[in-house]
Amino acid sequence: MTLRININADMGEGYGRYDIGNDDAILGLVKSVNVACGQHGGDATVMRRVCLKAKENGVSIGAHPGFNDIWGFGRRNIQMSASDLEYLVAYQLGALAAMASYAGIKVTHVKPHGALNNMAAVNADYAMAIGRAIKTVDPSLYYLALSGSEMEKAALALDLKLAREAFVDRMYDDDGNLQSRAIAGSVIRDPALAAERTVRMVETGEILSVNGKRLATQFDSLCIHGDEPTAVAVATAVQQGLKAAGIEMVTLPEMMA
Amino acid sequence: MTLRININADMGEGYGRYDIGNDDAILGLVKSVNVACGQHGGDATVMRRVCLKAKENGVSIGAHPGFNDIWGFGRRNIQMSASDLEYLVAYQLGALAAMASYAGIKVTHVKPHGALNNMAAVNADYAMAIGRAIKTVDPSLYYLALSGSEMEKAALALDLKLAREAFVDRMYDDDGNLQSRAIAGSVIRDPALAAERTVRMVETGEILSVNGKRLATQFDSLCIHGDEPTAVAVATAVQQGLKAAGIEMVTLPEMMA
Amino acid sequence: MTLRININADMGEGYGRYDIGNDDAILGLVKSVNVACGQHGGDATVMRRVCLKAKENGVSIGAHPGFNDIWGFGRRNIQMSASDLEYLVAYQLGALAAMASYAGIKVTHVKPHGALNNMAAVNADYAMAIGRAIKTVDPSLYYLALSGSEMEKAALALDLKLAREAFVDRMYDDDGNLQSRAIAGSVIRDPALAAERTVRMVETGEILSVNGKRLATQFDSLCIHGDEPTAVAVATAVQQGLKAAGIEMVTLPEMMA
Amino acid sequence: MTLRININADMGEGYGRYDIGNDDAILGLVKSVNVACGQHGGDATVMRRVCLKAKENGVSIGAHPGFNDIWGFGRRNIQMSASDLEYLVAYQLGALAAMASYAGIKVTHVKPHGALNNMAAVNADYAMAIGRAIKTVDPSLYYLALSGSEMEKAALALDLKLAREAFVDRMYDDDGNLQSRAIAGSVIRDPALAAERTVRMVETGEILSVNGKRLATQFDSLCIHGDEPTAVAVATAVQQGLKAAGIEMVTLPEMMA
Repeated sequence: MTLRININADMGEGYGRYDIGNDDAILGLVKSVNVACGQHGGDATVMRRVCLKAKENGVSIGAHPGFNDIWGFGRRNIQMSASDLEYLVAYQLGALAAMASYAGIKVTHVKPHGALNNMAAVNADYAMAIGRAIKTVDPSLYYLALSGSEMEKAALALDLKLAREAFVDRMYDDDGNLQSRAIAGSVIRDPALAAERTVRMVETGEILSVNGKRLATQFDSLCIHGDEPTAVAVATAVQQGLKAAGIEMVTLPEMMA
Repeated sequence: MTLRININADMGEGYGRYDIGNDDAILGLVKSVNVACGQHGGDATVMRRVCLKAKENGVSIGAHPGFNDIWGFGRRNIQMSASDLEYLVAYQLGALAAMASYAGIKVTHVKPHGALNNMAAVNADYAMAIGRAIKTVDPSLYYLALSGSEMEKAALALDLKLAREAFVDRMYDDDGNLQSRAIAGSVIRDPALAAERTVRMVETGEILSVNGKRLATQFDSLCIHGDEPTAVAVATAVQQGLKAAGIEMVTLPEMMA
Repeated sequence: MTLRININADMGEGYGRYDIGNDDAILGLVKSVNVACGQHGGDATVMRRVCLKAKENGVSIGAHPGFNDIWGFGRRNIQMSASDLEYLVAYQLGALAAMASYAGIKVTHVKPHGALNNMAAVNADYAMAIGRAIKTVDPSLYYLALSGSEMEKAALALDLKLAREAFVDRMYDDDGNLQSRAIAGSVIRDPALAAERTVRMVETGEILSVNGKRLATQFDSLCIHGDEPTAVAVATAVQQGLKAAGIEMVTLPEMMA
Repeated sequence: MTLRININADMGEGYGRYDIGNDDAILGLVKSVNVACGQHGGDATVMRRVCLKAKENGVSIGAHPGFNDIWGFGRRNIQMSASDLEYLVAYQLGALAAMASYAGIKVTHVKPHGALNNMAAVNADYAMAIGRAIKTVDPSLYYLALSGSEMEKAALALDLKLAREAFVDRMYDDDGNLQSRAIAGSVIRDPALAAERTVRMVETGEILSVNGKRLATQFDSLCIHGDEPTAVAVATAVQQGLKAAGIEMVTLPEMMA
């Protein structure tokens, strides 16, 4: 039986005249994209375009809700009430669903952006707020949650469809936590290394920690950061590495089917 | 057979800690509300609250999309491409649909806000852009269009469901155009006068111009401005006037059924 | 010799069509105002108007910089780099100086707003960032710092002009910290109680803690919150109480002279 | 006697994580830069950096105020009251003055951005509003106005310091108006052509219209658009062309001295 994996990347984070990332190049290299929803980045015009291109490329789309913070690009930690956060996420889910109707496709997952993803990984209130938004707006959506995080727990507690995520291009410590970006080497920018680690992860179900410890980890989807200068090279190497290893790249709904 | 009419008002235009208008008082006095969608005013928290209260009050809801201009409250005329405008409106339709799911209700109409409504009344490109957004996102929505405007034409051209609107609290010139707010007396703030005019409009299907000319006008819904200091008094008088005249106030979907 | 005190309040926090607070009423009751600078609230039009009214009332003005977060009204804790924060504060100082030129007056102090004030009270990086902005843009400005806070230390470390602040309408714990607003009674809304505490504070140089402990505290200015529903009543009672006790209310520069 | 000219370009239009334009390359090729002030683009961090680099390069700086419209990048025509516009411009002048204090330099001119520049060129109310802001905040600033425009008239009417501008990379019609960008060839992207035209303009004081008509035109400064993909090549060719022709490039204050 063929091994399979979903690879996801963030996309559509431009805003008005401002562009960022490598949307077009990345779109051909992954099978699911997380589409910014106009609050930390992205706008209606960009969202529609990404949805159309995702359809063309046979790529599934997810909402990528973030804090309402264009200046900070959703990368500033913000403290707010869990209920306000919940509604802010719900708003973004609805907005993307509307833009997806231009492509005649359905949004199939939700993955929080930046600081919201980081905070919700460890903050149960935020993780549950996101989950409640999904449950209310569209319970058919997968909650794409960092494996082992509070988001995973929230998805289970709310009886939501859960997809677990790990990172292709981030180093983990021995406890299975993402090593801080502040530590040199935490972001993996070497395409060959990223590809080798990815294949090993899919084949073994384990992540190799920074000290070589083997961490058994559940994951359905692997994330590649689209905004690193090395993103395209890394994604290309990962795609080729998976192909060479006979591992099939599939969309998230295919992966979960 | 009982005469019937729909009365609509704008609502939910607060933003974060900022409040504006008389939402709670107005909600009990009208049968349809136009809910701001977070771009010129309104936010996810406010939108959800208005949807819940609308349901409680048996009031139908519509999207009230505006320019993306919080500072200007959507009251500044802005020139932008028709396609960007279309997507901006589509985004807002989706966002409100999500928030309405908290109340378990459906959005049933779309009425543009402020400068967008004024511009789309006379600008066919804008009027069509709004229509295309409706057609793509949810063609079951009524396009609530100023009677005789470019929006009415756009709805007909796009084969959309059309509801025609006239104003309870605005004076018309002899050609049936809204007299500029800059002219004294253009906004009717006298509750008794507003009530009398409203009853006459429903009974005769005519609007009395500022010079007393009788203008035969098609309308399914009459708008009351919720942000005038006199709004609650005017809406109360209109409600009582209609009741005294034996005219039933109904929601927009009931009116169109 | 006559006892003297400065009373300050926040002001000018409207934004576009949105109004908030009780600017006009408060202006006649205090001697210094902290003017929002367009990032968490306030805009150029509002800032200019407050400056003109401050001049009319013989009230000194200070900048009231906040996080760039209109939706959150500057009340959400936001994590950002100290240098970005410094420049964001500097920007606001310059903007207010320009608007003050409409009144022909000078800005004389700086007091951070909301979450920024709370965070800078305990976070030395933030406190120093604000201080460096003052030092670069206009070192003649007083840094109006919560007595005993990291802001006080930063002002001293940077050799800035320091004015210390305490609160008229907030309860302190036995350690001299502001008791959380989440605890009932922490905000003093009883005008008579506020007035009595204020007079005692000025006469004794002590704050009475929630448990009756006498806390010797240095302060040059006492803050009244302008956004409480009771703000006008409290400020009126404080003004009358001070007058009855023969204590003179003066502007901040007069107080520090 | 050596011929001299000032060349200016827009700069510092990034916002948060978003970058745009070719600031670093352009900075070495011009003698004055128009610095975005945080309302249509730019932020405090970017403004400070541009000011520091301008000082390093011996380049004079001007404020480049725009509409408060980050999404539209100040390129959408917006109708607003002249007084609100005036204060919005004043705010931006103050903000930039503060950021310039980080470089220990003075802002020396004001040139409106994008849609505001286009509108103020033909709309006397807008042109005067900008002029009054300059007059109030800092009357030592040059109003850098399109030659022959309403801005030129406003500067003269308000007795402001006036510097006249023409365009290096835009085609003019026979009446001396900028030919619409919508017409092919209106933006000059050929470096050699731009350089040749520039030298001729400086040597003759005339602009050659699209039909070859010689238009005598007063100008103190020539603008190069920094956001065209060809901007760096054009600016390089212009710089070299001027040097080859023995024309000295000077800052705006030097040009006006």
